[in-house]
This record gives sequence, C-alpha cells and structure tokens, in this order.
Amino acid sequence: MTATSATGIPAPRRGRPGYDRAQILEVAVGLFNEQGYDATSVADLAARLGLTKSALYHHFDSKEQLLAEALDDALSALEGVLAEPEATTGSPAERLDFVLREAVAVLIDRLPSVTLLLRVRGNSVTERDALERRRAFDQRVTDLVTQAQDAGLVRADIDGAVTTRLVFGMINSVVEWYRPTGSIDRERLAHDVVTIALDGMRTR
Amino acid sequence: MTATSATGIPAPRRGRPGYDRAQILEVAVGLFNEQGYDATSVADLAARLGLTKSALYHHFDSKEQLLAEALDDALSALEGVLAEPEATTGSPAERLDFVLREAVAVLIDRLPSVTLLLRVRGNSVTERDALERRRAFDQRVTDLVTQAQDAGLVRADIDGAVTTRLVFGMINSVVEWYRPTGSIDRERLAHDVVTIALDGMRTR
Repeated sequence: MTATSATGIPAPRRGRPGYDRAQILEVAVGLFNEQGYDATSVADLAARLGLTKSALYHHFDSKEQLLAEALDDALSALEGVLAEPEATTGSPAERLDFVLREAVAVLIDRLPSVTLLLRVRGNSVTERDALERRRAFDQRVTDLVTQAQDAGLVRADIDGAVTTRLVFGMINSVVEWYRPTGSIDRERLAHDVVTIALDGMRTR
Repeated sequence: MTATSATGIPAPRRGRPGYDRAQILEVAVGLFNEQGYDATSVADLAARLGLTKSALYHHFDSKEQLLAEALDDALSALEGVLAEPEATTGSPAERLDFVLREAVAVLIDRLPSVTLLLRVRGNSVTERDALERRRAFDQRVTDLVTQAQDAGLVRADIDGAVTTRLVFGMINSVVEWYRPTGSIDRERLAHDVVTIALDGMRTR
C-alpha cells in the first residue's frame, strides 16, 4: 500500500485511505468471489475497504463497473494468448500446445478475475457481453482444434467442439483448488494440465 | 404426475396439489440450481410449486432437509460406483476405466443433484458433511490412480492426486453445458470423456 514513484502509480490523495483503483478492484473481486457478485452490495465493499460509499464512488461509478473491469482483465488476457505469434504461426499442434499452456498461465496469474469470469451466468448486459467474448474465444480454440484434426494431429473420432469443451473444462477446474502458495508451481501445473489434455493419463 | 400403483409411490392426498416428496425435491433442486440455494427461500419454493408454505412443510421439515436429500442422492450414486464389482476386481486400469465411465453416467443421469453438489461451498453442517463425503470419494479414486501408477498403467510423472483432480475437473465440467435433449447421447459422452482422460486429444 506504500505508493512510490517507482511504480508509476499516483500516490493516494491526502485525507483518504490509501487505495488506488487497482487496489479497490482487487478487494472487490475477492469479495465477489467470496460471497457472490449478486449478494455483494456497494455497502459491503465499502465496509471491507474501510471507506465510505461516497469515497468508493469517487473511484468507480457502480458495482457493475467493477465487475466489467475485472471480466475485461480476464478476457483480455485470454484473447491476448490468441494474438501471440506462437498462436498464429507453426503447425496446428504447436499452436494448440502453446494456447493450452498459456491459458493455464493466464488462469494462474489472474486467478481471482478468471474465477469471477467462470461464475458469470448472464444476469446483466455486462455479464452477457463477457459470455459473448468467452464464446468467441472458445470458437477460435475450436477452430484450431478442427485444423489440428484435419492435419491428423488431433483425434477426429471426437467432435472438435466437445474436445475443446472437455479440455477447457479441465483447465478451468483448476480455479476450484489451485492456490499459488501451495506445493505445485505455475510451470509444473501448466505442464501437468497440457500433458493430460494432449496425451491422457494412461501410459503407452 | 399421474400416480399409479405400479410405481409403488403412494397417490397424492386428496385436496392437495398432486406432489409427492420426490416431485417436490425435483422442483426444489431445479430452483436451487437456477437462483442459488442461499438465495432461495421456502416461500420461493412454495410459490413455484403453487403450494402454501404449510403444505410444503407437510412434506419436508426445512429447506436444509431438501438440500441434504439432494446431496445424498448424488453422493450415494457416486459411492455406489465404487461398490460395484467392476470397481473392486480386475486390474487397476480396468477398474479406473469403469469408475470414470460410471461417474460420467451418474453425472448425466442425476445432472440436477450433481450440479447442486458441485456448487456446495461448506456454508452449513449439511454442506460440510457433503464436502467430507466428496473428499472421501476423491481419495478412493486417487488411491486407485496410485495403484494404477504403481502397476505402470498410469503415468507416474504427474502426482496421482493432481491427475485425479484434473480428470474429475473435466468430468464435472460437463454439468456446465451438457443437456440430455441435445445431440450427444449418454454413451457417446461417457466414451468421449473417458477417451480424452485416458488417452488425450493428440493422435499417436
């Protein structure tokens, strides 16, 4: 919470508790994940931060704006994976390997905002927009799986969309139990997930 | 909703809307999944059923009793898989194949109660008991994975507990999108899930 010029983040204003937008967003996402977005009021969030509601509204227009920024954080990171050179060049199998590995990395690095994203059910325009972006991401991964099937690199006896859903189901399930402070580090987990997704648990 | 003597279920009493316990439980589980258990009141459920609260209390003592019965339905079915002869005899690989396939079948056949189970977070004694039974089930599957590793049938380069979590993460993710009325039938989906879990998406 110490604001230093080295971070490039402006120091908090005098007379206010020392939160910037990013810190408020972080606390909000934690609270949304803890007790549910719909069940969390602006008053709950203000209480958690030790701020008045009006001090909070100085930073954010609404609870929905906090949700929108958190969901955009998760979605932009996932979309960014597909924009990397390794996702657009090379064989479909290499690209798929890269996309799966980086999707796990995004999930680990942005565990709170991805967790929030995965719980979205479409109860507002913000949630429906996020679901639409998630579907577009899934569709682009499915296209990649289909290309890998056409190239004979991914099994063609299972529908590409079903394969994508199952593999991302496995990837996303990591938010239910993974804790960064635990015994499995980021690279190890990404390796484990990609290995099971590509080659399964059975020995050859 | 027609009560026949062939089902062995007593006909509804005269003068009450025609629900028996099982039907009330089904509607309750649907409502819990739709709007969240905590957010659903007994009054909401009575309204959905077109019953008075007192008529509802004739069948169930509390909202928590409905939850407990639904969670027990899902957990008993999963535990039942481990009690089958195919889960206790044969090679660890055959037993694991059977357990994964049957776990998918339980999930599909009891989609509403398994969905409810997977959303439990431990907010009450009933929820904590259910989580405890889920953990015990997971542990028994992990033991089976470890035996299969020791026999050289499952890759030993990934921790058995992590493998189990990832594979069940994939299995459980099916509740997010599978609809029995869709284009993929029960046997097809069980085949697809077990194939990806055991052998992965990549061709050999």
